[in-house]
Amino acid sequence: MAQILKGKEVAEALVETMKKDLEALKAGGLAPTLGIIRLGERDDDLSYERGVKKRCDSAGIAVRQYVLPADASQAQLLDVVREVNNDRGLHGVLLFRPLPRHIDDAVIRGALLPEKDIDGITDGSLAGVFANISLGFPPCTAEACMAILAHYGIDPAGKRVTVVGRSLVIGRPLAMMLMHKNATVTIAHTKTRDLPSVTREAEIVVAAAGVPEIAGAEYFREGQVVIDVGIHVKEDGSLCGDVKFSEAEPLVKAITPVPGGVGTVTTCVILRHLIEAARKAAV
Amino acid sequence: MAQILKGKEVAEALVETMKKDLEALKAGGLAPTLGIIRLGERDDDLSYERGVKKRCDSAGIAVRQYVLPADASQAQLLDVVREVNNDRGLHGVLLFRPLPRHIDDAVIRGALLPEKDIDGITDGSLAGVFANISLGFPPCTAEACMAILAHYGIDPAGKRVTVVGRSLVIGRPLAMMLMHKNATVTIAHTKTRDLPSVTREAEIVVAAAGVPEIAGAEYFREGQVVIDVGIHVKEDGSLCGDVKFSEAEPLVKAITPVPGGVGTVTTCVILRHLIEAARKAAV
Repeated sequence: MAQILKGKEVAEALVETMKKDLEALKAGGLAPTLGIIRLGERDDDLSYERGVKKRCDSAGIAVRQYVLPADASQAQLLDVVREVNNDRGLHGVLLFRPLPRHIDDAVIRGALLPEKDIDGITDGSLAGVFANISLGFPPCTAEACMAILAHYGIDPAGKRVTVVGRSLVIGRPLAMMLMHKNATVTIAHTKTRDLPSVTREAEIVVAAAGVPEIAGAEYFREGQVVIDVGIHVKEDGSLCGDVKFSEAEPLVKAITPVPGGVGTVTTCVILRHLIEAARKAAV
Repeated sequence: MAQILKGKEVAEALVETMKKDLEALKAGGLAPTLGIIRLGERDDDLSYERGVKKRCDSAGIAVRQYVLPADASQAQLLDVVREVNNDRGLHGVLLFRPLPRHIDDAVIRGALLPEKDIDGITDGSLAGVFANISLGFPPCTAEACMAILAHYGIDPAGKRVTVVGRSLVIGRPLAMMLMHKNATVTIAHTKTRDLPSVTREAEIVVAAAGVPEIAGAEYFREGQVVIDVGIHVKEDGSLCGDVKFSEAEPLVKAITPVPGGVGTVTTCVILRHLIEAARKAAV
């Protein structure tokens, strides 16, 4: 029986710390405020937005929404980005992506100030996580994984870690963050040969492939810690991760559930970044 | 007996291609020009500068030197960086580092335009190599390693690669470049446990630890390709790499010598970047 690394516990601990930070900021006359920029009405975006707003409401954080039609022009979107950049009362920005095809993602990302980029999408934030310098913010999901390891006292230092997936929103930045914590990291991906042998040699496995239940029993061995970043809707409407939980759980030492694992922590990290951004802006 | 991956062959091939590119640019009225910014008279800097100037002279590339005293102020250095940024007749810049302690490296790097950063030191270049987007340039030594592999027909795709060393000038960017070419990359470093076992499991080993002859026979096995990035002066005045060549060479399939390996290719890469920068500036 593996230890279940529940996101809820981690999120609650983060919320406790945030409450104190927030009170301290408000006592100093500063009200951290989040901006959400959305184009159109995609279901994914709306559901994510609801989750973020709910958390902000319960934490007492103000949210300003900037909603444009799905066919808004690049110039219109740029105007909004510039507006939030210049608004000193707005501390962090969530920009929902992917953007429609008629808009150049690189131009929009390039326009956003790294210090307001609490979701880690700008080149500045990428350089920050790569170079391990204080510039922008790392992607929230990557940081959520780090927060889970930290909460449960799992120190990556000196450990072999295999990260499956090399995306810019999770695999690559998380590999860097684990390396900055002195893990020996291997980045596996679609072109990796004999993937199960590469995950089996690791002490910590992060599954961020974006493929439902790709990792079955053959990927794991006893003693491992498994962080499952995937979240997918199955045909019967239930949710699953990148890992076949029923096969991995009996083998490994500890594993995050889906749902109730990484995803539960991610929205907390956004708020933590917002509070950090507000604090830095106040200095 | 291992195949010796000689840098000279690679450099000669690169120079041939560059000659054609340079002729084409000059025929169009464009004369690629390199700027070198140096503070003080450190032996390392002077010797590197001589090497670069020699290559530029023989290729017919103009060099402009900006030499400041070792105790120049940060403001003075910033003025020089702004001057080269604004000079449309100057296409790429080499800024010798480490800078003296009284100067904030991040401020200077932040001031240089990524499109003139042919040595890959700006945050823009770091984001470029991390995200695999066209922004700035990768560090020259990292690209020299890739050029050696390409020249000798060694395709990293699908191969296990261990990079020993995680510095921002070589280990980390090279790991990303190998990953972009579909290698399965492990980044090892000073906190890695049982380093010899981590290098033995790889098909390509890159030694970029910066420690003289750290990697002896126990680090290698037959069939491997070894790229030795280190270059160190021994007590007797001779040069050596990070690898104990006499122990590794009889075991492995192919290996770069020191001297005559990676270092020989690096200055060529600088010029290739300069020509690329000039071409992009002309568009």
